Amino acid sequence: MERKEFRDLASPAAAREAIDSLSLEAGIDRVSLEDARGRVLVARLDAELDVPGFDRASLDGYALRARDTFGADEADPARLEVVGAVHAGEHPDVELEDGQAAEISTGAVMPDGADAMVPVERTDRVDDMSTERASSAERSSANNRAAEPRDDGETASTDETDGDGADDVLVRTSVTPGDNVMFAGADVAAGERALGPGTRITPRDIGLLSALGIDEVPVRGRPTVGIVSTGDELVRPGGDLESERGEIYDVNSYTIAAGVEDAGGEAVLYPHAGDEQDEMERILREAAEDCDLVLSSGSTSASAVDVIYRVIEEQGELLLHGVSVKPGKPMLVGRLQGSAYIGLPGYPVSAMMVFRTFVAPAIRAAAGLPEPKAATVSGWMARQERYGEGRLRLMPVGLVQNADDEPLVYPVDKGSGATTSLAEADGVVEVGPETDYLEEDEPVTVQLFSPDVRPPTLLGVGEDDPTLNRLLDRLENPRYLSVGSRPGLRRLREGVPDVAVVAGPTDRELEAEELGVWSREWGLVVRPGNPDGVEELADLVDRDLRFVNRTTDSGLRSSLEAAVDDLAADRDGSPHDLREAIDGFDLGLRAHESPARKVISGDADVGLGLRETAERLDLAFVSLGEQPVRVLANPDRTGKASVRELEAVLEDETRTDAER
Amino acid sequence: MERKEFRDLASPAAAREAIDSLSLEAGIDRVSLEDARGRVLVARLDAELDVPGFDRASLDGYALRARDTFGADEADPARLEVVGAVHAGEHPDVELEDGQAAEISTGAVMPDGADAMVPVERTDRVDDMSTERASSAERSSANNRAAEPRDDGETASTDETDGDGADDVLVRTSVTPGDNVMFAGADVAAGERALGPGTRITPRDIGLLSALGIDEVPVRGRPTVGIVSTGDELVRPGGDLESERGEIYDVNSYTIAAGVEDAGGEAVLYPHAGDEQDEMERILREAAEDCDLVLSSGSTSASAVDVIYRVIEEQGELLLHGVSVKPGKPMLVGRLQGSAYIGLPGYPVSAMMVFRTFVAPAIRAAAGLPEPKAATVSGWMARQERYGEGRLRLMPVGLVQNADDEPLVYPVDKGSGATTSLAEADGVVEVGPETDYLEEDEPVTVQLFSPDVRPPTLLGVGEDDPTLNRLLDRLENPRYLSVGSRPGLRRLREGVPDVAVVAGPTDRELEAEELGVWSREWGLVVRPGNPDGVEELADLVDRDLRFVNRTTDSGLRSSLEAAVDDLAADRDGSPHDLREAIDGFDLGLRAHESPARKVISGDADVGLGLRETAERLDLAFVSLGEQPVRVLANPDRTGKASVRELEAVLEDETRTDAER
Repeated sequence: MERKEFRDLASPAAAREAIDSLSLEAGIDRVSLEDARGRVLVARLDAELDVPGFDRASLDGYALRARDTFGADEADPARLEVVGAVHAGEHPDVELEDGQAAEISTGAVMPDGADAMVPVERTDRVDDMSTERASSAERSSANNRAAEPRDDGETASTDETDGDGADDVLVRTSVTPGDNVMFAGADVAAGERALGPGTRITPRDIGLLSALGIDEVPVRGRPTVGIVSTGDELVRPGGDLESERGEIYDVNSYTIAAGVEDAGGEAVLYPHAGDEQDEMERILREAAEDCDLVLSSGSTSASAVDVIYRVIEEQGELLLHGVSVKPGKPMLVGRLQGSAYIGLPGYPVSAMMVFRTFVAPAIRAAAGLPEPKAATVSGWMARQERYGEGRLRLMPVGLVQNADDEPLVYPVDKGSGATTSLAEADGVVEVGPETDYLEEDEPVTVQLFSPDVRPPTLLGVGEDDPTLNRLLDRLENPRYLSVGSRPGLRRLREGVPDVAVVAGPTDRELEAEELGVWSREWGLVVRPGNPDGVEELADLVDRDLRFVNRTTDSGLRSSLEAAVDDLAADRDGSPHDLREAIDGFDLGLRAHESPARKVISGDADVGLGLRETAERLDLAFVSLGEQPVRVLANPDRTGKASVRELEAVLEDETRTDAER
Repeated sequence: MERKEFRDLASPAAAREAIDSLSLEAGIDRVSLEDARGRVLVARLDAELDVPGFDRASLDGYALRARDTFGADEADPARLEVVGAVHAGEHPDVELEDGQAAEISTGAVMPDGADAMVPVERTDRVDDMSTERASSAERSSANNRAAEPRDDGETASTDETDGDGADDVLVRTSVTPGDNVMFAGADVAAGERALGPGTRITPRDIGLLSALGIDEVPVRGRPTVGIVSTGDELVRPGGDLESERGEIYDVNSYTIAAGVEDAGGEAVLYPHAGDEQDEMERILREAAEDCDLVLSSGSTSASAVDVIYRVIEEQGELLLHGVSVKPGKPMLVGRLQGSAYIGLPGYPVSAMMVFRTFVAPAIRAAAGLPEPKAATVSGWMARQERYGEGRLRLMPVGLVQNADDEPLVYPVDKGSGATTSLAEADGVVEVGPETDYLEEDEPVTVQLFSPDVRPPTLLGVGEDDPTLNRLLDRLENPRYLSVGSRPGLRRLREGVPDVAVVAGPTDRELEAEELGVWSREWGLVVRPGNPDGVEELADLVDRDLRFVNRTTDSGLRSSLEAAVDDLAADRDGSPHDLREAIDGFDLGLRAHESPARKVISGDADVGLGLRETAERLDLAFVSLGEQPVRVLANPDRTGKASVRELEAVLEDETRTDAER
């Protein structure tokens, strides 16, 4: 068999064309009105009845013949005989003759013989001795207990008449035929075009459908999208992970499923396929059987164990293999058993970028949904970004506002295997294949991931710290990248973030405003009860203890190194020798909790860490000192509202700490 | 009991305050990752593990010790012994010594002893006689069947070694420790702040949660909102309507339910409450028992049968009754059995406007959802609008673009009882209580009903016609108001719509471009088989037949009147007398199908109508002639793309008609 090796990468346009040639449409669903919100009508709906279905009183008052009121006014009211009453939901049992009126409530059927109505507050009842009158500006009198005028159409009624014909009403205004009456069909008329095909049903459309009595509508079916993640190393979230075997949680299944639902499709998760061709084929066939579109992720590149494309090529039809886009090169497009098939890359960021760019638009089109309104932001590159790989780059970016509230744009890139980059990004900048680099301050257009995206109010970088995490919870939508103290300082110097958080000793001073500082206790995290009897730093040097350090990016590491230097000075020895004597000194982990977790798992006896971490994880702790954690503001951003807010929160928090 | 009579209407601000004082929050839900999309986190989630959980190869190639490659280049490769292979999802069973390497596939665990890796294409295997080399620009050779370099992280493997240690690899580049390795925790580190409280979960966040192995998250509960519609005259859509009793379909229940779901709440529909206090009380208590908020509609104004406010006042706590806003005055705010209660007006348009302005924001706040991004359009009034009622007006408006693509704004108002206005509106203009009128061309700001709202591409008005309905289906998002021929012409003269559609004879010519014309056959619609043997117009005059006419707005009516005039001329009689002789000549219905439906229901023997209508409804038809239906363009809008498109569709349709 010839191997596919991306020799001829398709252009992005060709990939779109190949996907357009697939049919993802799912037919027609009939859904109840309760489930119709957001669905897309497949056919025009015409009104099959008049709304209202009868001539309807618009107010509480009296139905009458308009000509009986001609010439009536406040000074010279018309006097009519009240011969009955009609309430909403009742068949009128009265027919008006000349000179007669009937009480009528809002929404009630106009009785035969009536051609207009007068609201109650332009009338007076003369059914007893009372001659009191309510002016039109006042409310009705005590004897005239009819309802007040309303423009909002509640069902209501005036008093019952006693039916003896002795009641009269004085009408203090003249009306013309049709006044205060909503005629049958005035709202919607039978045969009228109510909703056009392709209407995406809003609550307002549901109102119209309700008025027409329609309780079921034909809508576009949601394309069913089967999701198959492949890879022997994948474990579904919630399951147990064996990291030592290289297992990782399956990110793509739920993420792509959520993307499918966002695009108007219905996601179906299939069990993981391992890397065996037979199993993969079985699961792909099952998914193709059930679904309009099958999406796989992983196993799409050309390697010996990558068999999906063979399944598609042998059992179905392979339209395209490999696209000239970064990330996303190893995309497959084809058909299997009459269903559409698209193979996504395995790396989550790549998979989502390809999904978003090529697949989501096709699902939306099949679901009849319009492309979401362009949600773009024009900004400027916060720093230079080199590229130059000769293919279209879909570059995830974050946004941060400068002091003038202008958006600055920075690439979000944690390396190709990262799963989390997109959670830290706001959108995408498309960088053309001919671009070698983007300059600092170069204007770029960011396509937000959705129109809902709200860029963070504050961008912080630096040391990871439990107190900081709590502080951040008190801010509205902050973003914090825990890159460590040193990289944090470097990025602050580059001018991108609003603040940097730095722990422990620093090499040099920065031009930065200190917004606040607190101190934290650091030292050695050991097993509960400290079974090894660790007492001080020297134990690490002198005894046979397996230690786990932090990376040199960390402020904890800096404090530890300073302490080792001090110990060396005390012993008149060389710091280098002391470091070498500590088993695991070079084993630096990135996160403040990771060494403690190595102690829990039994992989180490002692870990570098914080008292707070040890206490939270129910471990014992040997204190080696305190170190300051400082929050430094970018000098250009000290005026930003969110920076000032962080300062206030810091003041509040550190004051409270001191007083506790 | 004292009656409440809106003597002191609360300000809109006071109404908001009263609603804010209610507690709508629904507690915490724990949802699976599959159901987490769009939900709002209640607490910060920190990473509980490192991602990846191990040092991970980023590419396919060879794991090795970096120092063994120092100085290596194309001309002088380093030669290392290949002692094993590690695949993704496997525990490495090899430990490297100096001078050794192991094959490794993307995503696999770095073996002990290795501190870097080299991608396969910078290497050559020398396990046999082959000395062939693949340059880095070319693909690997036939003998070197390792995978090609990838930036997208699929699981893959290079070939197995035979394990006899005889295999060597030539490394044609030098690397430094950490090269092409993603260290444990580099993606997310244990203890790191992953997602902050209040995060609305996107697919990207689901990716992060998946990576952390989290399959269940604590989110804000959706407020449960019970919906109780009151009114004896309401029938739920799908049920049978008795129009003669004044019954109408219940619009509010499903519409408000959809609005509740849009705002992030969960709607629960309760059975209709009639106007009896006992029943209403029972249903309201049941709803209050089950729900965080009870919304009723109808029965909130002060009339004898309006009892809801008594239930609230006597059984709960009434905070507010009546708000100075139009529409929406009779709003109630209170508490019942520990639940929040809001009473909405009964008229659907009023109910939805009040819901949207006062209730939806409270539901969103309780659900933890942000206010939707401001979706506003600045436009100009298309015509003058008088107001001057001294309270805030929430005016539903439609949008139409003028020739320069600028939005013009016109009020949508079909009268207070109308249910459909909102389906024909795009948003709301708030008109202050001090405003007496809005001038034509006055700038106004429209709050769109949602950011998704797409104003129509074309605004048409005029005659209702089946051919026209089909034409409109071929356009993208048109809006058509079937107001009749005469009102259509009047509105065209006022300059608001893009086109008007006029049927039958017209009084005078207009300065308007005719885009197209077709003709339709009109006449008398009678029962199937024409049991009365109706043959011509004279039968209506001379025989005892119950007729149903159309309103004078209709082009059909104009043609009928012209025919009656001709008949009078033939008989040397007076048109007036002939009209009087027709039983039902003055009974004009608004819609082109309504007379035919009166014939079906047995309320009439003969209806004015179209052949097409008769055929569609399986009725018999007596032709009286043909009339032209003309599509006239607003002279200012003839250049609009949608107008030109309509013209093209017209040309196509009428040509097809002629050729059929």
